[in-house]
Parts: sequence; C-alpha cells; structure tokens
Amino acid sequence: MQMYEIISKKRDKKKLTQEEIEYFVSGYTKDQIPDYQASALLMAIFLNGMDTEETFHLTLSMMKSGKVLDLSSVPGVKVDKHSTGGVGDKVSLILAPLVASCGVKVPMISGRGLGHTGGTLDKLESIPGFRTDLSLRRFRKILSDVGVCMIGQTKEIAPADRKMYALRDVTATVNCIPLIASSIMSKKIAEGADAFIFDVKVGNGAFMQEQDEAMLLAENLIQIAKRFKKKAVALITDMNEPLGEAVGNSIEVVEAIQALKGKAPSDLMKVTLALSAHMLILGKKAKNLKEAQKKLQKAIKNEQALQKFKEMIKRQGGNPKVLDDYRLLPWGRHKLVVNSDKDGYVQSIDTRRIGLCAVKLGAGREKMHSPIDPGVGFLIRKKVGDTVKKGETLVLVFANNINKGKLAGKEIKEAYRIGKRKTSRLKKILLFVDEKGARKLNCAF
Amino acid sequence: MQMYEIISKKRDKKKLTQEEIEYFVSGYTKDQIPDYQASALLMAIFLNGMDTEETFHLTLSMMKSGKVLDLSSVPGVKVDKHSTGGVGDKVSLILAPLVASCGVKVPMISGRGLGHTGGTLDKLESIPGFRTDLSLRRFRKILSDVGVCMIGQTKEIAPADRKMYALRDVTATVNCIPLIASSIMSKKIAEGADAFIFDVKVGNGAFMQEQDEAMLLAENLIQIAKRFKKKAVALITDMNEPLGEAVGNSIEVVEAIQALKGKAPSDLMKVTLALSAHMLILGKKAKNLKEAQKKLQKAIKNEQALQKFKEMIKRQGGNPKVLDDYRLLPWGRHKLVVNSDKDGYVQSIDTRRIGLCAVKLGAGREKMHSPIDPGVGFLIRKKVGDTVKKGETLVLVFANNINKGKLAGKEIKEAYRIGKRKTSRLKKILLFVDEKGARKLNCAF
Repeated sequence: MQMYEIISKKRDKKKLTQEEIEYFVSGYTKDQIPDYQASALLMAIFLNGMDTEETFHLTLSMMKSGKVLDLSSVPGVKVDKHSTGGVGDKVSLILAPLVASCGVKVPMISGRGLGHTGGTLDKLESIPGFRTDLSLRRFRKILSDVGVCMIGQTKEIAPADRKMYALRDVTATVNCIPLIASSIMSKKIAEGADAFIFDVKVGNGAFMQEQDEAMLLAENLIQIAKRFKKKAVALITDMNEPLGEAVGNSIEVVEAIQALKGKAPSDLMKVTLALSAHMLILGKKAKNLKEAQKKLQKAIKNEQALQKFKEMIKRQGGNPKVLDDYRLLPWGRHKLVVNSDKDGYVQSIDTRRIGLCAVKLGAGREKMHSPIDPGVGFLIRKKVGDTVKKGETLVLVFANNINKGKLAGKEIKEAYRIGKRKTSRLKKILLFVDEKGARKLNCAF
Repeated sequence: MQMYEIISKKRDKKKLTQEEIEYFVSGYTKDQIPDYQASALLMAIFLNGMDTEETFHLTLSMMKSGKVLDLSSVPGVKVDKHSTGGVGDKVSLILAPLVASCGVKVPMISGRGLGHTGGTLDKLESIPGFRTDLSLRRFRKILSDVGVCMIGQTKEIAPADRKMYALRDVTATVNCIPLIASSIMSKKIAEGADAFIFDVKVGNGAFMQEQDEAMLLAENLIQIAKRFKKKAVALITDMNEPLGEAVGNSIEVVEAIQALKGKAPSDLMKVTLALSAHMLILGKKAKNLKEAQKKLQKAIKNEQALQKFKEMIKRQGGNPKVLDDYRLLPWGRHKLVVNSDKDGYVQSIDTRRIGLCAVKLGAGREKMHSPIDPGVGFLIRKKVGDTVKKGETLVLVFANNINKGKLAGKEIKEAYRIGKRKTSRLKKILLFVDEKGARKLNCAF
C-alpha cells in the first residue's frame, strides 16, 4: 500500500477502505508518513468528505493508536459528557457531581481551553491543590469510590489524534465534520465509558455557526458511537451569548458552586439539567425526563450534589473549603465596571469576541503552554433580550493588570449591540438528537 | 500575511491575490514555509482551481524565484518548443535544427524522461561526447553562432518550480491544469524566448487522456504567454501510439537523423512539419503554412537541416560522424523479435505500457538519478490500423540483458490489441489552438 495512492483516491472523491485508513493513521502516528503527505490527505478529506463508514474506521484507527481504558471493574453504567466548547460553559463542573450524586458513574476526561473557548481542566485547576493529572489507576479508584472523577487527557490516549490535530491546526483543516467527529470519538471511546451525551454548541461563540452543521456533527457522533455499540444522544444548545454570567476560571468555579446550591442563572441551569437528565436516563437511573428532573432537583435541594463535589475535590487534592469561602479562590485585584452608553435592548453579543477578550486578559492561552491567570474574568450582567438603561452595568471585569482590564472593557462594549428594537431572550436548548434523528425536546427545562 | 489564511482562502474557493501567491512561492522557495502547509495549499488548488489571473501570478512568482535569461543580444526572433511528453516523441531533435536551418533562432532548454515518457536530454546524451550541461553564456554564444542550441534546465531557472514539483510528485497534486501550466510557463518565460509552440499530447501514452483537458491546458499556456506579452500557439496531437517507430534513446536519435534525411515514418514527419511550420510563422520566416512547409521541405532536401544538426552536435562536444555511421551510437547487444499470435488489425496499443516497458528495460529511470542505458529500445513495426498476419513482427526489442528483453517482449504483446474489425490509422494532428481558441488546421500535413 502506498500513501500516494490513498491521497489520490480521496482526491478523486473515492471511498477509502479500512486498511487504507489504518495504514495512514498508524503510519503517521509512528512518523513513517511525512507531515506533507498527511496534510495533503487531510485537505482532500476536508474538501471531499468521508462517509459514516470511513469516519468510523478513522475513529477506530485513531483509538487503536493508544491505550484503551477498561472501566469494567467499576460497577454500574458509566456515562461521559462532551461539549464542543463555548464561552462561559462551566456545565461539566455542575453536571458531573450532580449526576454522580444520583447514582450514575461519571468518568470525565476533559480538555483545556481552545481558541476563544474555556476548558474544564483550567477551571478545575483554579481550586487550590486540585490535581487533574492523576494516573489512570487512581482515576479508576476515585471513580469507583466517589462515582465521579475529572482528569485531563493523558498522552496514552489516542496519540494519533494529538498529532493529527496539531497538523490540522496549522493547515486550515480543523473545521471538517468527519475529522472533528473522529477526533472527539477516538478519545471518548478509548476512555471507556458505556454511554455519552454530547452538548453540541451552535452560535457566534461556538465553533459551529449553523444549526445544520451542528446537527450533522451530532448525528455523526451518535452514528460512530453506535458502531462501537455505545449509546449516545446529543443536545444542540445555543451559544450566541455566554452561558450563565461568569466567564473565566475561578469565577466560573464560583458560579458552578452556586448552581450546586440552587442559585445559578436560569439559562445555565436549563442546559445543565437537560444534559444531566439525559445522563440519568442513559445511566438507567431514570425512566424519563420528568423523573430524572425530579431526582436532580432533589439532589440539589438536599445538597447531595454539593457534597459529591466536595468529596471529589478532596480526593483530587483540592481544598474543599472553597465551597463555603470563595475568597480561597484566586481573584483579580481590580474590578472594572463596563456601563452602557445608551438605552435600549441587547440585540446581540459577539460571544467569540468576549471569549477572545478573556483569553487576552489571561483567562486562556494566547500561545501553547503560556500560563493562565485563574483570577481574571467577567461577569456578564446583561444578556440578549435584556433592557438596558444608559449608565447601567453591562459587564464587570476582574483583572490583575489595570491596563489589560481597561482594554478588555473597551472591547466588551464593542461586542454588545444595543438597539431600540424589543428583542426576546435566547432559547437555550434547540434540539435533541438521537439515533432516530433530531427533534424538539418535549420537556420544559 | 499568514500562510494559514492563504490556505483557508483557497480551501473556501476564494481567489488569491498577487501578494498572497508571491508570499507563498517566495516563502516556500526560501524554506520559510513548511512542506506540510505547501502541500495543503496545493491540494486545495488542485480541488478548487485557480483562474487565469491567479495562474499568471503563480507563474510570475515562480519565474521570479530564479534567474531570468536575457537573449536580446542574439539577433532575430527566438522561438522555443515544448511538448507535454509522450512515447517515441523525438520531434525536438528533428525540429530544432530544421527550423534553425530556415533562419529562426531556436533556444531549446529541455527536460529528462518523466514517468513513462522519454526526455530530449537523455536522447541527445546518447550521442558520444554530446554535452547538455553548458553554461548559459556558452548557450547564448552557440545560439547566436549556429542558430540552435539544446541544453538542460539549470538550477538557476525557476527553483520554486523544482521544489514545488518534487512536493506535488509525492502528494498526488501533479495533474492539475493551473499547476501544470504555471510549472511549464515559469521555466519557459525565464528562458528568454520571444515566442512558443506547444505540442500538447493527448491519449493513452500522454499525461492527458482527454482532448478537453488538453485544450484547456493549451488555452492556459497561451493565455499566460499573452500576459507576458509573448506569442504562443499550440497543437493538440495524438499520443494513442508511439510517435514514429523508435522508442528509446540511441534508436530515437537514429530515427531523427533519418527524418532529417527525409526518410522518416509519415506520422512522425506530419507532426514535426506542422510544429516546425508554425515556428517559421512565429519567427517571421514564413507568412503562412504553405510557404513554411515549402521552406521546410527544401531544407530537408538540400540537407541544410542535417548540416545544422551536425554543426550543433560539433559545437556541443558530440561526435558528428554519428550522422553517417549509426554504429558509433550505443546499441543493445540482443535483438528480440515480438511476433503476432493471430491475424487481424491492430485495434489499439497501450502506449503508456510501452513507455513503462522501455523504462524497465533501461531506457528511462525507475528511480531518480538511476543511470539509463542509451542502447536499449524498441522498433514499433505495427501501428494502429495496420493489418497483421500471424507470425508477423509487431515489435523489435533491443536489449543488453536477455531476460529483461524477453520480459519486455511479453509485456509489449499484451499492450497490443489485435482484432478482426477493420480499423483506420490514427489522425495525428487533432487541433490547432491560438488566442482565438481551438480549431482544425486548414493545411494537410
């Protein structure tokens, strides 16, 4: 077999066989295929596509490039959640302990911030002492004991994906559904869960701008899971404004704790509860959404979810006192207020820009490996559809560098479009997708 | 400017600006842009195309990557010829001295065999002592004195093309009209001629299989030449069987000499005279094809063309006695006869396969830099449309290794399709193309 022939086939819109895909992935991972041939093939895939079978084989080959976790020693159904990424998306921090407190095992392997979006690992690490780099043995142990454990990707999981992603990142071949789907699924399947829920974000703060595209990705993810004999469902959720109010690291941890105490903004709560409810169903702890929601509400009310979070923080080396005393978390020295210049309604928020502002302020990485500042971030006081009066606060900025803070404030103001037209609040949960396709959720969250 | 943005633009079918193309070509030539980004862009160009303006800018940038020859010190109109390559295509060896003997300056910079096709340089170098690696100063001097000089590409001409071609060769991005056209034209324009004739081959022994594709390439070449204010015309000629009878190196030189003596197969003569006649018109030595043809016939009859070849061989270090004594040329020790197994008509010849057989026998390179055997080759005794009797000779094989020769003979037989259906001979000159488009030639060659 020759890489040249494989590139020519895909260039000519032909279907690649399992053997050809395996030859490429394993050869590339072992440095036997040069970057320039891999990038030519990736561009051909980007432009000519891959069908479900090819995408499955790509996922399989990428998964097999590394270690495949065996969680069978952990009793019960293990359900994992994956979000395609957004701004202010702290859902995992709330959902993981909440769902675990209802009896479903949640083995969560998360990522760091990417581009303008935040990352669960970065947020968790703002808790003093919290470790996300546990061994897989330890991960399994905590999962078994506590019911939930949240760690970062290890080098052993799907090395092919890491190498291919780095190449796609510099050759303009990231935004391609079969490549995105196989990248996500190769890691998720290797991580050993039994079922998955996907939060596919769509909007100006997501990687996907169009609902059609998001649906296609969701369907791809579910189809791949099915080929691996794993259950999966997806929600398409809105990302045309930050989720909740907090954007940053510490600040999002606080909002997540508040949510576990039943005191979170309603949009954040809606998305979290909807995703969590499906996880209870997937984990066989509820028969339907109504029953699931009742259990989830109860776990918040009786503080079982909060206790689960506490237990997990403790076992992962973090200081559990942060749950009661937010001053134990790092916090920006300067608080700046961004006020509106005019009366009206918030027409739209350039969410990607808000995310990029947060990165520039230090909440994310402008370059690979640059350190992040866990104490900086924003509180979004006005969201789409809100009325605003001149002089009223749009956003609070928490910064450690006053100039950077001012710059962020200026940019944030530009990200808001305020106009006279009365505008409605954004619908958060757009569609539910399972094997049978996409439809509206018939339960009010 | 960033390479990432340039790749994304072409990926999204957008038009690249002159600055973007120049950034890519000059950066890549200077090793500032990595192969993997270049190959992603080349694949995007392959699949999404380039318009005439982009192709012109690509040609210009590639040309500017190296030395641009100034032939203005050589008096008269300089006309160059380029063939897209075929099997048994020894036209340049006949045409260059023939046209020069009619007063047109022919500065010819040729290539080596590529894939299954032969190369003018390899053929010339089978003449004992003949040098194709002259300095550009010496090239100019011989051109000025003799009117014709034939050398190989120097490293100074269009280094961007050399680097890009090597990358295209291993990333399945060779067969793309804007890339082929800019590759050819960047070198041709840098070589300083005033006008060009292109022999665009089409058929099972050419790189282009379809006439539409060949026409598109011809039109591209002519349009680019026009942008450089150079005159150019093209002929689309048939390559569904070897041209003439000889396939190899020495053996093709002999056929070329025979042609200059007026004793060549008619198909070879037709193509050579048609191309030569257009060169006389481009070089302002004839007003029309009729006048041109008369002059060419005369130059063959009175042996002026043969004398011109002799003069050139002498000045380029070769032994001019080969013109009279073919035994001075290397020749395969073994002569094998390939006979027909049945009666009928030659329906078709797999010309690419004949070319590959010649390469395997040693007439071309299986690997870069492997030496070639100038003495081996074939004489094609039966062509498409010929009647064949069982036991009659199809091809003579000249080999230095008897086993390789036998193997070639076996393969050649497989390349012939002989059937009962009466078949006509192949038309050689299919179309004439100039700035006004493609049409039939209204002159019988």
